[in-house]
Amino acid sequence: MGHVVNPGPGRPRLEQRRRPGGTPRAEILDAAAELFTNRGYANTSTRRIADAVGIRQASLYHHFGTKDDILDALLEKTIAEPLALAAQLIAEPGDPAPKLYALALYDTRQLCANRWNLGSLYLLPELRTERFESFRVRRDELRKLYAVVSRQVIADTRPAANGTDTLNGVEYLPFRLVETVINMRSDDGVSPEHAPALIPEAAVRVLGWTGDSLRLRETAEALLDRAISPVQPPA
Amino acid sequence: MGHVVNPGPGRPRLEQRRRPGGTPRAEILDAAAELFTNRGYANTSTRRIADAVGIRQASLYHHFGTKDDILDALLEKTIAEPLALAAQLIAEPGDPAPKLYALALYDTRQLCANRWNLGSLYLLPELRTERFESFRVRRDELRKLYAVVSRQVIADTRPAANGTDTLNGVEYLPFRLVETVINMRSDDGVSPEHAPALIPEAAVRVLGWTGDSLRLRETAEALLDRAISPVQPPA
Repeated sequence: MGHVVNPGPGRPRLEQRRRPGGTPRAEILDAAAELFTNRGYANTSTRRIADAVGIRQASLYHHFGTKDDILDALLEKTIAEPLALAAQLIAEPGDPAPKLYALALYDTRQLCANRWNLGSLYLLPELRTERFESFRVRRDELRKLYAVVSRQVIADTRPAANGTDTLNGVEYLPFRLVETVINMRSDDGVSPEHAPALIPEAAVRVLGWTGDSLRLRETAEALLDRAISPVQPPA
Repeated sequence: MGHVVNPGPGRPRLEQRRRPGGTPRAEILDAAAELFTNRGYANTSTRRIADAVGIRQASLYHHFGTKDDILDALLEKTIAEPLALAAQLIAEPGDPAPKLYALALYDTRQLCANRWNLGSLYLLPELRTERFESFRVRRDELRKLYAVVSRQVIADTRPAANGTDTLNGVEYLPFRLVETVINMRSDDGVSPEHAPALIPEAAVRVLGWTGDSLRLRETAEALLDRAISPVQPPA
């Protein structure tokens, strides 16, 4: 996976762009995602990212002030759409089980479809610093929205189990089950092809839901088709 | 969490040992685990580990040839006992559901009880290098043993579902559910206290097992009590 050699300041780029995205910003993000996930965050300098894109380091700084800013933008990409979708689904009328299935399906698909396994960066100790406070808050928000729908599923299927005392944290397992896609990808080196069929169903079943999974999946897919295209993060 | 300043070559250590373990080797492992999980693997030098223990770097090299060797020893600690227990449980007669519950309970407890969240190192890109081939093989073995017991649980509770085609990878979810303890710890900064009650039950339920959880837990605890104390990794 050779990278474009930096042709040096002022000289024309030796090769055509070949990273996805079409804009310098998108190319920087793609190169950084590749290097962060394959070589490690601490092991990757902005100079190396610029080299991998084939631009000067000064040009990179035109788009991102620091390496942390690049990481923050990559992390935000992994939660922006699930967050928008979760808020939208919760606001709609209808049964909770298809909503949870739809959210887990969408989220599983995007974690599988990302060109790089960005979720593997969630465990970086760097994320515990103040710089990433706002990302942590947003990801926590997503976790809580999963829990809101999960509690509705539990209330629907096992009314007697309601009340946080008896729940014991089970309402957070659907969110965690979706995250296991990250570990599967990391261990296998490829996206787990069975995950979109497996994870959303496990997410409802772990809450005690019992029912016809084929019908649930159809209802969830219809919900996703109807859902307004989730908002993109600001460029 | 201040560390002991290296008193310099030849000089006596300024402070008494205060890390758990009682041997230099155990202290090195503890200091390395703290630094790897809190500052990052790439950001931690063997010099810094030696400083944190209060020994000279040369003394550290007496116990470990490289930083990778320290990481390998730490990782091995997280799988040695679950591996020994899984092999032992599989060899015994008896119902599979309590075996899976017992394995998941033991494993969840040890992931919670480790002084540092060592599982967060599983996603390091460094682990994909040849140096960690043998650790990867051992961890894969553990994953497969979880799947063996999981398939037995499925055969027991849903005989019609047997056959890998229809399983769709669900037999790997109990292993992945146990790993979610690592993400919970990382996000919350503390071990999830409800995990030992929550995760093993989710591990059997996600396979379709339905039954009395209190009785299952009692049977599993009895299995663990009877189990020969799992072997320790070679020192």
